[in-house]
Amino acid sequence: MDLELLRELSVPNDTKILLLVIDGLGGLPNETGRSELEQANIQRLDRLAQESMCGLTVPVAPGVTPGSGPGHLALFGYDPEKYTVGRGVLEALGIDFDLQPSDVAARGNFCTVDAEGRITDRRAGRIPTEKTVELCDRLRRIGLPGVQVFVEPVREHRFLLVLRGEGLSDKLTETDPQREGVKPLPVRATAPEAETTARLLNDFIAQAADLLKGHEPANMLTLRGLAKHPPMPSIAEICRFRAGAIAAYPMYRGLAKLVGMDVLKTGSTFADEVETLKQRWDDYDFLFIHFKKADAAGEDGDFQAKIAALEEVDGYIDELHNLQADVFMIAGDHSTPAVLAGHSWHPVPFLFHAKKFSRHDSTEGFNEKACARGVLGTFPAKDVLSLAMAHALRLTKYGA
Amino acid sequence: MDLELLRELSVPNDTKILLLVIDGLGGLPNETGRSELEQANIQRLDRLAQESMCGLTVPVAPGVTPGSGPGHLALFGYDPEKYTVGRGVLEALGIDFDLQPSDVAARGNFCTVDAEGRITDRRAGRIPTEKTVELCDRLRRIGLPGVQVFVEPVREHRFLLVLRGEGLSDKLTETDPQREGVKPLPVRATAPEAETTARLLNDFIAQAADLLKGHEPANMLTLRGLAKHPPMPSIAEICRFRAGAIAAYPMYRGLAKLVGMDVLKTGSTFADEVETLKQRWDDYDFLFIHFKKADAAGEDGDFQAKIAALEEVDGYIDELHNLQADVFMIAGDHSTPAVLAGHSWHPVPFLFHAKKFSRHDSTEGFNEKACARGVLGTFPAKDVLSLAMAHALRLTKYGA
Repeated sequence: MDLELLRELSVPNDTKILLLVIDGLGGLPNETGRSELEQANIQRLDRLAQESMCGLTVPVAPGVTPGSGPGHLALFGYDPEKYTVGRGVLEALGIDFDLQPSDVAARGNFCTVDAEGRITDRRAGRIPTEKTVELCDRLRRIGLPGVQVFVEPVREHRFLLVLRGEGLSDKLTETDPQREGVKPLPVRATAPEAETTARLLNDFIAQAADLLKGHEPANMLTLRGLAKHPPMPSIAEICRFRAGAIAAYPMYRGLAKLVGMDVLKTGSTFADEVETLKQRWDDYDFLFIHFKKADAAGEDGDFQAKIAALEEVDGYIDELHNLQADVFMIAGDHSTPAVLAGHSWHPVPFLFHAKKFSRHDSTEGFNEKACARGVLGTFPAKDVLSLAMAHALRLTKYGA
Repeated sequence: MDLELLRELSVPNDTKILLLVIDGLGGLPNETGRSELEQANIQRLDRLAQESMCGLTVPVAPGVTPGSGPGHLALFGYDPEKYTVGRGVLEALGIDFDLQPSDVAARGNFCTVDAEGRITDRRAGRIPTEKTVELCDRLRRIGLPGVQVFVEPVREHRFLLVLRGEGLSDKLTETDPQREGVKPLPVRATAPEAETTARLLNDFIAQAADLLKGHEPANMLTLRGLAKHPPMPSIAEICRFRAGAIAAYPMYRGLAKLVGMDVLKTGSTFADEVETLKQRWDDYDFLFIHFKKADAAGEDGDFQAKIAALEEVDGYIDELHNLQADVFMIAGDHSTPAVLAGHSWHPVPFLFHAKKFSRHDSTEGFNEKACARGVLGTFPAKDVLSLAMAHALRLTKYGA
């Protein structure tokens, strides 16, 4: 259901919902014919699947490979085609930058240009992060009239640029021409209210070009994904529950904050996250906990490491289950098959364990094939939240 | 498909469609681990399921618990999030009141107020229906300028108020403050065209307050769900068929009338309904017949009574099947699991028996788990009608 209907039907209750997101959960068979989940020794997940309703979630739409933003937003109940988060904003979330609603953020890339200013390498030979730290420090000398300028290194040739001030707009075009042999484009306003912001950014770029002169291979920059913090309704307010997020990685904390969850202080490992979850269990009605390693291993194309990551998270399942949430969900934001070494469009295994009112029917195990035959079938990830709200008796009747 | 496309594609034919709605059909397992349908001896339904395409219908959206209105509208092909029926109108339908398109209807509740006019009991101690009959009679003395006033008892403290006249609007707020200790609210117009209607209703309330003085516990009233007959396209016209409805209970007759079906005179039992169906078989292309008892038993939380109700309707299945409809559908407007003692959000078992062009694949039986594995999968209830129209060869090709 859409968020407006969810808002209309939500009622408070004293039930609890736990959402474990295993990042990049879904996979594909390798030469053995069996996927990471099928090969992993995940007896706790397999056993829980038998007492749960299982299915496959479609993160955005059939065939669409989602980034982390849409993948998570869908699991939080937001239609990822309607609610989008600009790349600049995601970059800010990813380094824990405290973005304000009026800020304009951009993803910056250092690049190489020739004597005529034509781009010869869009990634400046992927300079090491330390070099980017040094160059960002240099760019901080730039002053612009009436706005504050933040330049923050991210990784390799990537950095974050944020302008802070009154009346800024993100109705702007990007400067990366997406190919080499041509000059970077100027920033152009796509609406009259963005003219000033475009001028400020072009001023920034001109000053930066001077400061970067002679710093080959990083003697120029491009700006992409110019965006403001999108107006997102708060899921905590819509669902009338206290929502807490536990994630070691900044981007997931940022996404959770974006949708109105409290971001809980935690350590850097999943064991730390689980400890935080147990400590703060009584303070929240809805808790989201994030497990990163499966995605990282998938992205690396490391089949065995992905198996190991899945076995690692399996080790925590009983501990999570023993918290006795009224609804315990195990989901993925997208698939990251090791054989693809990247995110993919494949529907993602989903396990829905409700203490009561469940129609579970012994799914054989927790993997792609078994979940495809699960009672929940293949369905949009954005319906996960309403299903949880219903089973937690947090929704009232629709219509008389 | 939506109704506009259905209108575009519909063509007449001499085929017949029969829709049996078993109200509150879906259920949940009790302590035995098996649901009402799984425990009931419904051999005729089980056998028919094996020669049919089965699935589960989602009445409104995942997680949404529908009232009877949205549940039936969806099975009649109407998107229940787009076409809504106000509570006042449903109350009128529920007592067979002949509502006109220009009428404004409200659900009235008798309540108790203290000397300062503050509500002390929103339901007036649920006074017996006979008392409400007497009080409604008293309220009929009220005259309002330029409009006719109807006051009809419903049940316990509930009654129906209808204003009939020119230029009435339902853009109005309710007077029930939804809590005790405060005074009823005045009716307020939410659009300029409703100012006159609001004044008339506040005049009615003032006169009623005088007439009810001293009639504790029913010494005041509140008005809710002020609504006009919604503009509904006629399904008979859209599908170019003659549609007849057979239901012993007024609300279901009313809903059928709302969507343009002929409401056939019948008796008070399901046996009467089946008799009417057989008698009027030749007069219609589409026939809807309603079985109420499963829902009533579920609402009472009576697992055994729900089993008995399902076994009762099973006794009629061969008789209905023998009518040889080209398409015979057995559906529910929503689930009413006895363990929840109320409507629920769970998808509803659905059986689709087509004489020809069927891809049935021996569903093991007619119950929640078997239907979850059925060839139709889990799908929106509003698609049921187009599926029937197609199998009855009543839809032409889309596009060249």
